[in-house]
Amino acid sequence: MAGSSFGTLFRFTTWGESHGPAIGVVVDGVPPRIPLAESDIQQWLDKRRPGQSRYTTQRQEPDLVKILSGTFDGQTTGTPVSLMIENVDQRSRDYSNVADRFRPGHADYTYWKKYGIRDYRGGGRASARETASRVAAGAVARKVLGPAITIRGALVQVGPHAIDRAAWDWAQVAQNPFWCPDAGTAARWADYIDEVRKAGSSAGAIIEVVASGVPVGLGEPVYDKLDGDLARAMMTINAVKAVEIGAGFAAAALSGEENSDEMRMQDGKVTFLSNNAGGILGGISTGQDIVVRFAVKPTSSILRAMRTVDSEGNDTEIEMHGRHDPCVGIRAVPVGEAMMACVLADHLLRYLAIGGDP
Amino acid sequence: MAGSSFGTLFRFTTWGESHGPAIGVVVDGVPPRIPLAESDIQQWLDKRRPGQSRYTTQRQEPDLVKILSGTFDGQTTGTPVSLMIENVDQRSRDYSNVADRFRPGHADYTYWKKYGIRDYRGGGRASARETASRVAAGAVARKVLGPAITIRGALVQVGPHAIDRAAWDWAQVAQNPFWCPDAGTAARWADYIDEVRKAGSSAGAIIEVVASGVPVGLGEPVYDKLDGDLARAMMTINAVKAVEIGAGFAAAALSGEENSDEMRMQDGKVTFLSNNAGGILGGISTGQDIVVRFAVKPTSSILRAMRTVDSEGNDTEIEMHGRHDPCVGIRAVPVGEAMMACVLADHLLRYLAIGGDP
Amino acid sequence: MAGSSFGTLFRFTTWGESHGPAIGVVVDGVPPRIPLAESDIQQWLDKRRPGQSRYTTQRQEPDLVKILSGTFDGQTTGTPVSLMIENVDQRSRDYSNVADRFRPGHADYTYWKKYGIRDYRGGGRASARETASRVAAGAVARKVLGPAITIRGALVQVGPHAIDRAAWDWAQVAQNPFWCPDAGTAARWADYIDEVRKAGSSAGAIIEVVASGVPVGLGEPVYDKLDGDLARAMMTINAVKAVEIGAGFAAAALSGEENSDEMRMQDGKVTFLSNNAGGILGGISTGQDIVVRFAVKPTSSILRAMRTVDSEGNDTEIEMHGRHDPCVGIRAVPVGEAMMACVLADHLLRYLAIGGDP
Amino acid sequence: MAGSSFGTLFRFTTWGESHGPAIGVVVDGVPPRIPLAESDIQQWLDKRRPGQSRYTTQRQEPDLVKILSGTFDGQTTGTPVSLMIENVDQRSRDYSNVADRFRPGHADYTYWKKYGIRDYRGGGRASARETASRVAAGAVARKVLGPAITIRGALVQVGPHAIDRAAWDWAQVAQNPFWCPDAGTAARWADYIDEVRKAGSSAGAIIEVVASGVPVGLGEPVYDKLDGDLARAMMTINAVKAVEIGAGFAAAALSGEENSDEMRMQDGKVTFLSNNAGGILGGISTGQDIVVRFAVKPTSSILRAMRTVDSEGNDTEIEMHGRHDPCVGIRAVPVGEAMMACVLADHLLRYLAIGGDP
Repeated sequence: MAGSSFGTLFRFTTWGESHGPAIGVVVDGVPPRIPLAESDIQQWLDKRRPGQSRYTTQRQEPDLVKILSGTFDGQTTGTPVSLMIENVDQRSRDYSNVADRFRPGHADYTYWKKYGIRDYRGGGRASARETASRVAAGAVARKVLGPAITIRGALVQVGPHAIDRAAWDWAQVAQNPFWCPDAGTAARWADYIDEVRKAGSSAGAIIEVVASGVPVGLGEPVYDKLDGDLARAMMTINAVKAVEIGAGFAAAALSGEENSDEMRMQDGKVTFLSNNAGGILGGISTGQDIVVRFAVKPTSSILRAMRTVDSEGNDTEIEMHGRHDPCVGIRAVPVGEAMMACVLADHLLRYLAIGGDP
Repeated sequence: MAGSSFGTLFRFTTWGESHGPAIGVVVDGVPPRIPLAESDIQQWLDKRRPGQSRYTTQRQEPDLVKILSGTFDGQTTGTPVSLMIENVDQRSRDYSNVADRFRPGHADYTYWKKYGIRDYRGGGRASARETASRVAAGAVARKVLGPAITIRGALVQVGPHAIDRAAWDWAQVAQNPFWCPDAGTAARWADYIDEVRKAGSSAGAIIEVVASGVPVGLGEPVYDKLDGDLARAMMTINAVKAVEIGAGFAAAALSGEENSDEMRMQDGKVTFLSNNAGGILGGISTGQDIVVRFAVKPTSSILRAMRTVDSEGNDTEIEMHGRHDPCVGIRAVPVGEAMMACVLADHLLRYLAIGGDP
Repeated sequence: MAGSSFGTLFRFTTWGESHGPAIGVVVDGVPPRIPLAESDIQQWLDKRRPGQSRYTTQRQEPDLVKILSGTFDGQTTGTPVSLMIENVDQRSRDYSNVADRFRPGHADYTYWKKYGIRDYRGGGRASARETASRVAAGAVARKVLGPAITIRGALVQVGPHAIDRAAWDWAQVAQNPFWCPDAGTAARWADYIDEVRKAGSSAGAIIEVVASGVPVGLGEPVYDKLDGDLARAMMTINAVKAVEIGAGFAAAALSGEENSDEMRMQDGKVTFLSNNAGGILGGISTGQDIVVRFAVKPTSSILRAMRTVDSEGNDTEIEMHGRHDPCVGIRAVPVGEAMMACVLADHLLRYLAIGGDP
Repeated sequence: MAGSSFGTLFRFTTWGESHGPAIGVVVDGVPPRIPLAESDIQQWLDKRRPGQSRYTTQRQEPDLVKILSGTFDGQTTGTPVSLMIENVDQRSRDYSNVADRFRPGHADYTYWKKYGIRDYRGGGRASARETASRVAAGAVARKVLGPAITIRGALVQVGPHAIDRAAWDWAQVAQNPFWCPDAGTAARWADYIDEVRKAGSSAGAIIEVVASGVPVGLGEPVYDKLDGDLARAMMTINAVKAVEIGAGFAAAALSGEENSDEMRMQDGKVTFLSNNAGGILGGISTGQDIVVRFAVKPTSSILRAMRTVDSEGNDTEIEMHGRHDPCVGIRAVPVGEAMMACVLADHLLRYLAIGGDP
């Protein structure tokens, strides 16, 4: 299929299945002489790692990353950086439940129809485990972007419960297991997700990722616009069904006056009086914060019987047991950050190519 | 920038500015022996053409397309199809108003900062005029898809006014100047947009595009997923700020039970009991309708003074006059259809490449 | 087929058939603010133009290029540069001779088998007329490279007659109709090609293209090596059957001592004592002259009957009449130069992307 | 640099340095349901493996390949196939000799100038060790091509000593350590290479790779022509300086009559009376054998002092010791075969995409 790569100049390729021996990513196009150690990557993987609270899956994976190529004396050399993460907790279990039946809402049916074969163990290639590779690539991308650009993500809605945006405090994100920027809402989510978990049900979520310090000029009109690439980047994350930039869908209901971000000079710099554009105009970064939101559907793996069909074409039911993830959206936050970093790194290099001096 | 192409196997490249001599598109990767005449393309361009009602811009462009290569005896030959549309109504006018000042909400500032030069006449390359090339490419894509796959678009919200989905009737779309599938709402929009127009203001909109008859199996996990490519395709259309598939953002508020599309056999075929997935699971088409929605912001060209800066770094104001488009979202409907067609054509070819028999 | 594009960042896409209304090229990725006028391109097209001496085809084409997009006030804007050349001398003639029979040595048979349809007029897409688009793209590439990099080509062999390399004088190239750097050999070729022409036969040729002033560092190991891209670039020119860099095939017979280009410092700069490498080591430019040679086969259109088959599967004969090109290799010189320019421009931009300061 | 990938639909990405922990390749785009075991790949790696005769380097590498992803129950699943080969014999040694001095004829100087850093141990990324990854990818490509297409390589010249083509016998290739198809020449080469080895010198070589059973129709004009991709594929192999197809450079000296491959029907099939085209016309396979030759320069690592410079800009000398490879061209045979397989697999899939039925 040759669909496992992302990016043009900063380009990564992921591989691996949920229950194979390992997963990994080859990051090509990393500029040389950037300090890069395994710890630079591990810190981000640790944020995504499963099993860290009762609100996410209990699969235990240390997610230890190894750098197999591309560095020398602690610096990148300009050659491909190959990263590998061994799969440790592939429980030996009975897969007869899922081998021939398609879990609704999962990729089981489509992979089977498309390929005529599928690795049904833990979702195979379609497992969210693949996102660890994205986080690893994103860690390298952050090093390419350098310290002047910061990328932060937060969970802004769980099920029907949105945060109070007036109470937004980035410092809160690290203080609760939800990446919630609003302490009051975090407490309510804890109760809500516990309920969902006990009911064997699941909840969707909305994630917001913000990049600050991005220079003006990133994005290549008209098909490699920065927002186009971000939309693709986020939509390819498992279970994502929607992406918006800045005011997003709400912009449809605004008037031209309300939506236009007027400009003034301030301290010798161009300043925008609002950011409905989410930091992107005409597909090119404006220098404002880049603001992306995406929705993650509730996982389809719930602990109750669902109607489905089997690979022989019979009506049947399927019921999932065991490890259960009440809100997969939580762990999507670091993944969204990583994809933002990768898109920006790629466009930073592309901008340099035409003489950009960001 | 090399960002003017879209697609992998069915790949098109657009060129041209709003006020240059012409615009066009080279469509490469068209399979051979497909009947293709200029009229096959013209019919879709006519739907997008400006100046057809008082609700859109009054620029008069016949948008007559010429096929310059790639066909022989009325059929495609497998070589690149070059299509050209001359620009006719480039009013000679005074551009001093916009030459040195940046229209808020437009790409003026970002193009100027990125490239250090910009064609300020009518928006240059960032003009929505470029979307005529997309529509032309989409017409070719429809021929590649064949008659079994139908792609239809509709406007489902203008400003704050959404349609009544219960009243959805595809036959209505051609009966009003808004592509509105609900006759009652269409009448209300007429009044609303007239008001907006007279006030010199503008309104946003939401478009829904539906593809029916798409076989199971299109989409290349994990970075060339069908939904990822659709998200990029739609987000790169001028003024689009949000894209969603199926239940989209609303999925975040659903429970796993509500969101999962259960399956049953019906007449020997797999049937889904709902379509929250919007026809895509794991990045691959399910055989259900593919449903995409995207939001278009209100155009930033409104007939009142706005605060801005000039290229010398001074605070100033800008006021637009002349032709005015109160709701650019209307003409985005055929563009969204075209992008859907192009994405599907590309993935159809990619599926054939691995032996798919859709 | 989607095979009509070349390059990654400096990327061009050609279109058009020999006997269609026009041919052209879209050059994407051109950096902004480069002065570019039609005359900058026309001067190179004039060198490739047919009908300038009795040694090449007598087709009369003015090959006047039009810039349709991508410039403003005489400078590039960073948007795609669309160039078009109208076909003028498509003689109305009887094609029944070639419509159903395959000319040996031409692409007739393979196009027909691959696509099931072919534009048989003048070779269609497979005509060397396509190379005018390459020359146009190459003219833009030269502007990207700037005046410090010079690219020159010469014919070094016609049929079995090679030049005397000791007599090489670049100034001679413009003094004869063969791009021959050796005056004595040029005179001999004139006689030889006249004989070939009168006999209705044809002669092959070898072209050498040299780029001087190329900075160290261009080329992206290991699959986008500079020599790999040059090999592809030259081999895709019509009728080319071989490409070599530096010592090329002759290197096979050298010893390691003879072949190694030793190094010394000279005036504070690294200097090589020979250039068997042809200016490329490990796929990266060394700063020496880049030297590429390629062989063009004798055109298969000769004025005598040849055995062939027809599209119905019958043995038959075919005999060509009319315009005849005794040595197509002559006009390949500016085409080889153009492809060299395009490859270097692409790699220059790619090098800038990783912080290169050539 | 993002230059570590090859192919469009059958696309592989290699990674790894000579003296890192491992090297590897991710093969993306492999169609599903193809039987694939490690032994299918190992058999080809064993042919390339170093240390098998006294005529090649004495580095001892078992080159054991592991499949880390992309198969299930012994078949490919359509997901990326990740292959890894551990480096075993990275001798701990003193690199001070090469750390700051540039070996003439190697990539030391260009990597250092381009990246400002280089892994000098064993050539780093520029080592021929990378070709093991190519061979692994090629083994997968052969499975994609199926048994009807056979790819065979042979050494046809060592130093100045060419084989006697009249004595060509494919069965001989496996009977000597040189892949020589002519027993008499093989004996002479043994003496010659022993001399070269004892003298601490090195010899170049010419390799010929032939693919039989290739259907008509592979290759995508005009920039992704089959011969263009083959030229790039071979030229990117370490130390290759020249590539030719069919008659190659010799075609320049032929007349049109001699060079044209006339056609006749034979047993209901189109047959060519010669194969100067090397199985490719207009960039598309003709159904004849595809014949490619490429030249490998003598390795620059010879056991005598050579003049060079150091990274501080001083004149100096360098002398190599230890393991020595008198004719690197020998081990390039399986690498050339692998690249042929990869190019054909990619184009087979691309042909299927437009409805080709090879």
